This record gives sequence, C-alpha cells and structure tokens, in this order.
Amino acid sequence: MKFKVKLIPVKMERASAILSQEDAQELGLLVGDRIKLIFGKKNLVADVQIAIGMIEKGEIGISKNVADLLGIEEEGEIEAYPVSKPPSVEYIRKKMDGKKLRKEEIYSIINDIVNDALNEIELSAFVLSNYFHGMDMDEIEWMTKAMIETGETLSFERGTIVDKHSIGGVPGNKISLIIVPIVAASGLYIPKTASRAITSASGTADTMEVLANVCLSVEEIKEITEKVGGVIAWGGATNIAPADDKIIRVEYPLSIDPHSQLLASVMAKKGAIGAQYLVIDIPVGSGAKVPNIDKGRELANDFVTLGRRLGLNVTCAITYGSQPVGKAVGPALEAKEALKALEEGKAPKSLIEKALGIAGTLLEMAGIAADGVEYAKKILESGKALEKFREIVEAQGGEPNISSDKVVVGDKTYDFISNIDGAVSRVDNKRVVKVARAAGAPKDKGAGIVIHKKAGQHVKKGDKLFTIYAEKDWKLDQAIELAMREPPVRVSSMILERYPSYRYY
Amino acid sequence: MKFKVKLIPVKMERASAILSQEDAQELGLLVGDRIKLIFGKKNLVADVQIAIGMIEKGEIGISKNVADLLGIEEEGEIEAYPVSKPPSVEYIRKKMDGKKLRKEEIYSIINDIVNDALNEIELSAFVLSNYFHGMDMDEIEWMTKAMIETGETLSFERGTIVDKHSIGGVPGNKISLIIVPIVAASGLYIPKTASRAITSASGTADTMEVLANVCLSVEEIKEITEKVGGVIAWGGATNIAPADDKIIRVEYPLSIDPHSQLLASVMAKKGAIGAQYLVIDIPVGSGAKVPNIDKGRELANDFVTLGRRLGLNVTCAITYGSQPVGKAVGPALEAKEALKALEEGKAPKSLIEKALGIAGTLLEMAGIAADGVEYAKKILESGKALEKFREIVEAQGGEPNISSDKVVVGDKTYDFISNIDGAVSRVDNKRVVKVARAAGAPKDKGAGIVIHKKAGQHVKKGDKLFTIYAEKDWKLDQAIELAMREPPVRVSSMILERYPSYRYY
Repeated sequence: MKFKVKLIPVKMERASAILSQEDAQELGLLVGDRIKLIFGKKNLVADVQIAIGMIEKGEIGISKNVADLLGIEEEGEIEAYPVSKPPSVEYIRKKMDGKKLRKEEIYSIINDIVNDALNEIELSAFVLSNYFHGMDMDEIEWMTKAMIETGETLSFERGTIVDKHSIGGVPGNKISLIIVPIVAASGLYIPKTASRAITSASGTADTMEVLANVCLSVEEIKEITEKVGGVIAWGGATNIAPADDKIIRVEYPLSIDPHSQLLASVMAKKGAIGAQYLVIDIPVGSGAKVPNIDKGRELANDFVTLGRRLGLNVTCAITYGSQPVGKAVGPALEAKEALKALEEGKAPKSLIEKALGIAGTLLEMAGIAADGVEYAKKILESGKALEKFREIVEAQGGEPNISSDKVVVGDKTYDFISNIDGAVSRVDNKRVVKVARAAGAPKDKGAGIVIHKKAGQHVKKGDKLFTIYAEKDWKLDQAIELAMREPPVRVSSMILERYPSYRYY
Repeated sequence: MKFKVKLIPVKMERASAILSQEDAQELGLLVGDRIKLIFGKKNLVADVQIAIGMIEKGEIGISKNVADLLGIEEEGEIEAYPVSKPPSVEYIRKKMDGKKLRKEEIYSIINDIVNDALNEIELSAFVLSNYFHGMDMDEIEWMTKAMIETGETLSFERGTIVDKHSIGGVPGNKISLIIVPIVAASGLYIPKTASRAITSASGTADTMEVLANVCLSVEEIKEITEKVGGVIAWGGATNIAPADDKIIRVEYPLSIDPHSQLLASVMAKKGAIGAQYLVIDIPVGSGAKVPNIDKGRELANDFVTLGRRLGLNVTCAITYGSQPVGKAVGPALEAKEALKALEEGKAPKSLIEKALGIAGTLLEMAGIAADGVEYAKKILESGKALEKFREIVEAQGGEPNISSDKVVVGDKTYDFISNIDGAVSRVDNKRVVKVARAAGAPKDKGAGIVIHKKAGQHVKKGDKLFTIYAEKDWKLDQAIELAMREPPVRVSSMILERYPSYRYY
C-alpha cells in the first residue's frame, strides 16, 4: 500500500510509523503490530502507532530518524505493508510458559533485541519470564554467548588478559582506579570497561571521567591496553554486548535484575573483551544487592560454573557491603580519594584492603605471585601504581601530572555534626546514595558526600559526621533537607531507648 | 524547572514529554520515569522520553493532545519536575513476587490503569504476573468491582435485567442477534454491549453495525432498552469498565488472556450494566478458546462463584465449539444469516439450536417460563422475534423494514469445489477466520466466507464446499491463495491414506 509521508520532527528511540485509524483498520493493524516501510532499495520494520487525529487517511507519520535511515529527505510517497511478528515472540511465549529454550531460540531472541525487532511489551515479557521462571545453566550459557556474538569483541595477539567486575550496590566503590594500575604495573593486560551510574551516585566510568576521557572505541581500548597495560573506559560508548543495555531499559522501571540476566550480563561483557582471569566482587550485607554471605556463595558458584563453560577462569570475592567503601561518594570526591590512596598507599583502610585483596587475587590467578596481596601492596607502596595510573590517564587524554589536591570538588559544602556522645551504629548505603544524588551526583561531578565517621567509630558531641558537597546552592539545600529527614549516618549512645520514655512526676 | 515548549504535531496515545539528554541527566531522569507538567492551574503526569537530537537543552517536546489537555496554545514556557512512581507500581512488584494483593492495592492498580498512570512495561508486568501467578477469588472479586467502579454504570428503575456473553473463539457466532429480540419480546430487559473483532472475522458489534448504529452512549443504551426492551451496542463506545480495554492492549501482542483477567473482564461489563441474570456461552473443542469440556466446567464454576460474590445470578452454557456456528462468517454475511433465521425460524440448525438454548436458559432463570427453550421457540416461530428485532434496529437508527435479502454482501465471490467423493472431516475455526480476514473482514463489511458443507456431511465430487466473498479483487485473490494453501474445509474419503503410498511395479 502506498502512503504519503508526513515527517515528524523528532528523533525517537524506537522506529515507529503512525497510521490513521482508517488505514490501520483497513490493514487490520493494531498498536503493537509491525509494518514494513520500503523506500527505494531501503526498508525497515517499524512499530505501528495509531494517530488520534493529525494523520489523514493515506498518510503515514514517520519520525526524523526513521526517515534518515530510509534516506527520505522530503515528504513524498512510501510503500508500507504489515509484517507478522518475528519467530522470537513465539520463543518468548514458550519461556512465559516456563519451558526450557533451545540454543537457536535464545540466539533468535537476543538477535531481535539487538536489532530492536521486539517492542517494549515483548521485551518486558522476556525479562519477566526470566524473573519468574529463571533459566538453567545451559540457557544462561547460550544467552551469554549470544550477547557476546551480537556485539563487538576484543582480541589481543599476546599478553595475559585479566579483568575485575563488581556487581554493585555499595556506594564509594572506587577500587578499580587502584586495582587497574596495580595489575597493569605487574605486566598483565586489564582492558576494563565500566558502567555509568543508573541509580547510584557514581559509576566507575563517571569517576574516571573526572580525570580522563572514558568514551573510547573498542580499537582505542585495545591500543591503550597494548601501550600501557590498562584502561578504564565507559562500556556504553562501545558496542560490546549491546543486548544488555536494551534489557536494562526494561529492568530499571520494574527494579528487577533476574539472576540469569545478571550472570549473562557480567560474563558477556568480560567474555567479549577476551578476559582469561576474572575476579568478581560480590558485596554482601544490609543495603547491598546480596543480603548475606550464603546468598553470596550461591551467586559466586554460578559465576564460577558459567565461567568454566565459557572458558573463563573466575574467582569471586565476597566482600563486606553493609556500608560505603572508603569515605567519599560522588565522582570527583571518589577520584580524589582513589588518587590519594595511590599517592600515600595507606588510608582509607577499607578501600586499600579491598583493592589489594582483589588485585592480589588476580595476580595469583595469572601466576604473577604466590602471595598476591603482598605483591600488590609492594606495587602500591613503591609508587609504581601511581606512576602507572598517570600513564593510563595520559593515554586516555587526561592530565598526566594529576594529583589528588588538584581534583576540583563542589565548593558548596555543609557539615553534619553529632549532637550526642556515642558511636556510629549504621552508615546506610541507600540513604548515602540518595543524599549524594540530591546534591547533584553523578551529573554534577563535584557533588557528593564524605563520611567522616563510619560504623563502629566513637563519636563525641560536636564531631563532624559527614559533609555534603554540591556545585549549586539549591541542590545543596535539597540534599541537606533530605539528610535531615533521613540521616545517612546514625549515632547511638549505649542506652538505645528509655522505657517508659516519659518522665515520672 | 522551566522549559520552553516545543509542540510536536501528532496526537499520541500516551502522554509523553520529550527532554534533551542534558536536561534528563540534570534531573536524573531515564526513559520510563515520570515528569509532572504544570501550566497555569492545570497539570498532568507524562512519561519521560529522551530525544536523540531535535530537542535542545531547556526545551521540552509535548504532543498536540498533551498541549490541549494543559490548555497550551502556542510555544511558551512550562514548569516541569520529576515525580516518583505511583504506589501501584510497588503493588505490581508484590504480585510479581506471587503475593496476594489487598483490596486497596488492587483498587489502586486499576485506578492507575484507567488514568494512564502506568506505562507499558508496568502494565505488562501486572498482566504477566496474573498470567504467571494467577489470582485467588478474593482478588478477582476486588478487581472486578474496581473495574466496574472506575467506569460508567447503568441502572434501571424497574424491569428485570438479563444478559448473555460468549467468551469467543468460535467464528460465525451471531447468536446475539437472535437471542436479544427473543428475550426482549418476552418482556425482559437485555441491554447488551458487545465487542468488535480484534483477531476474529466479526464481533457482534461489527455484525450489528451492518444493520444499525452501534456507537451508543450509556444514556442511549438505557433509553432504547426502556423503550423496546433490548439493544446491541458496541461496548467500546461507552466508558463501561474502561480498565479492560487498556489491559487488552497488552494481552494482544502476547496472545495471552490470563484466567483472572478473563473472569474479571466479562463480569465487570455485565455487573456495570446491572444484569441480574446472566448466561455465559463457553464454546469448547478443537480450535476454540477452551480445549475440552472439563476445562469448560472449571471455568464455568469460577464464573458462577464470582457471580455469587457480585450478587449476579450466572448460568454457563458449555457449547460445541469445534467448528463455526451456522454457515456464514463475516459482518454482512452473518447479519444476513441471522435475519434469515429470524424470518424463517428454521435453518441453520446449529445456529437456531444454540440461540434457543441460551435464550431459553435466560427465560427460565428470570422466571418467565418453565420450559424456556420451548417458549423461546414459540417467540421465534411466531415472528415476534423478527418484529422485535426490527424495533431494535429502528431504535438504533437502522432501516426498520430490513430483511435478509436486502443485506448487501461482497460482489466478488469464489467457490471452492470438492474434487473427491467423501465427507467433511473438519471445518477449521482458525483457518476459516484467516481466510475471512484475508478477504477483508471485518473492515470490509461484505467480506467473509460461507461454508456449505459442515463437519460430518457427505460430499460428492463437484459439490461446493465454501464460498469466499470480498469487496475488492485483490483481497479476494489473497483469500483464495490462502484457502488453497490452508484449506478451511477438509474432505476425506474413507481411505485416509495408502501405505506404502507408491505403486507396485
């Protein structure tokens, strides 16, 4: 059927074609159906939208980006006809009914996800089916492989490739900025891709971006790794495992992260860069993603099993995740703290200990040292890690002579003071993140929070508990208000409560 | 935050606001999040979309219909700020985890569905959770009541209100055009709302529309019912149980119809019009929605139980659904066949028998007759049903002197002939529908298929098996081609197969 093109001056995420109600009825099309648009030798499949007015019979509304893809420059004629659902929708139905999918079926689904051939309802159905029914290890393996193969991959002619990944959930986890240079300084290759914050206050990519460019192509990642041994790039700028980004778009509004998806997502990214040895950081504890060490072990076991099937040697580090790592939360504050740790090799203790533990494990796995932690500590304390980090920053287009005191943080600050003597009973991960985000993180790089007293530390009346940093006054105010309502650091005296709480008369 | 409005010249189904990537990041918004738009004293909550170009920092793209709702006439300034998810999203998450919902939670979800406060992913999650976990009878009762209360309802000062509903799945089911006038002629009120075809060849509303106007308001339905006793209107033109239409939009692309949703959907519509006695037609058999009589009984039991909770007296008719009812499939062909049955009171047998069975049950339930079928038969054969039907048609703005020979059907026809002697082994519901739709039904009212020989009937070589009707040549060709590839009527001789099938030499 021929239509007159009406250009819609917006570029939207999904390819859509807008029909009049009459034409949609004529073609037997409903919202959610598909239509193939043909212009000259080009064609693409778009989602059907039905206009409520504005599009006349015989017209078809097409957004600017769809027009660009088809090479349409002005409003002319286009051919369009209905096409049926791709077979992957049937396979999703099969998974909805709790049946095990075959390899080809999973490949077909992942392929269609990458090519935007599934609409939001269908994609939701896939992710929710995995949430409800789970997948067995065969299916997870196939899904991981399909995710790797539908994106770009890295391969090195020589060298031992290692990597680390944290499943997230704990604020202030800037350990990659310390681990990557230590590992690279030992002679291993560590081409680390990291994510930006979605719901957190700073992703590793946001933190690194304070010091260097993180939008690197796969070729640049390879080049820099071969030159200086390591890199910290934003995975989203590459086309590594692109299915994952599309799946996350559906998981986010529902706040779910199905087990099978978590496993496949991590391992696809690491498989795609050709890692041979991998350490996965699984923080456990209240306010972390994994509530306790038993659940942590189950997840660890699945990662190791999946790694074995993919030919990837995995060790998991189950880590303490009940409060932030180190003291700083927010891109610039974290970059500054990580740099200081590289400069001094000492505090904060939780940060150094965690970074050395994971770096050491990688060194042992790759056969560099028998006591990896000791070896890693030497690299850090000798200043070689700092030197290597500066090389990496320079290779990524940053200032090579960077030091912690040169990192600019938000100039609007506010200290929270303890009004009692006592001890910190809890530093609440979720509240810390909320306050840091209210202050402007991760968008405002200088915004965030620095915690002066962590859980268990003694506090005197008048001591500073934490400081909020912001770049804008109104965001500082907003963060202060939130922190007053939901204090991220809680101090208790030994007497927790008086009962009855009223005085006797 | 203030934005410059950029009007998008389309009216889209969901209220969306399109932000630049920079502003979205500044506000911490992702696709799927919500933003409140405030203009003067009006405000509404829209879905966040993120533009890929075309919308500059500081601008907000708003579609024509959203602008209309806010009273924006030209591109000026508007206030907008992020709002969090409604609490109903938390309740959906609860159902996702298989937990029973409380009454207030279900009301909150249904209310937000009706007000478009849930996006497609969230709505899909609700429907899929019901598909995966089901609902118990408490939850179904609350959902039904919530669906009734969030829409328009009908109430009559006097009279006994009865209704019938078919759960669908069987083509040619034009029984309502016979049942409604019989029941109305007996003195009962039957204000029937019906649906249009979604995936079938003709809904009752499509069929009735051949003869009269079916787009009636709730007030008109009431008025006509009080005047002539019955009506056959399109439910979609009213605001009865509007949640149902929104839920169907998600069920359709996934081809699912969760049990709890089916029950609530039917009973909400019938509860809303104030029905006291209701017969539900449950066709069972191969190619119907319900595969066998046992499953039919289970469903019937749930309908009766739910009816009791709602104060609605329900009887279910489990009917033969393995082939079409009557011979005609497609709006005008069905209207013609129903009229002919009213005129002659005889053939086709399957149609008359089913219509009298259900009408008779209603008459018995409402205390009109002890032998309802006999009573209904008398009304039909006396010509009173025809007379009543003409009154109804006239009240709905149709031609009062309508007769079956005046109904115009498609003038492009093609007969399929048997090339062997034998008997019809099957008339395949799904294939019949596919062929009728390929011929143009339900959009082209005159298109469809008439089956001359039904299952079990003897056939001689050269006998007509079925005829395809169309309004357009190319659609006729398309239907013929499909019918050749997937014959809707299959004829077998007694020898089904020769084995070995090759000849001996």
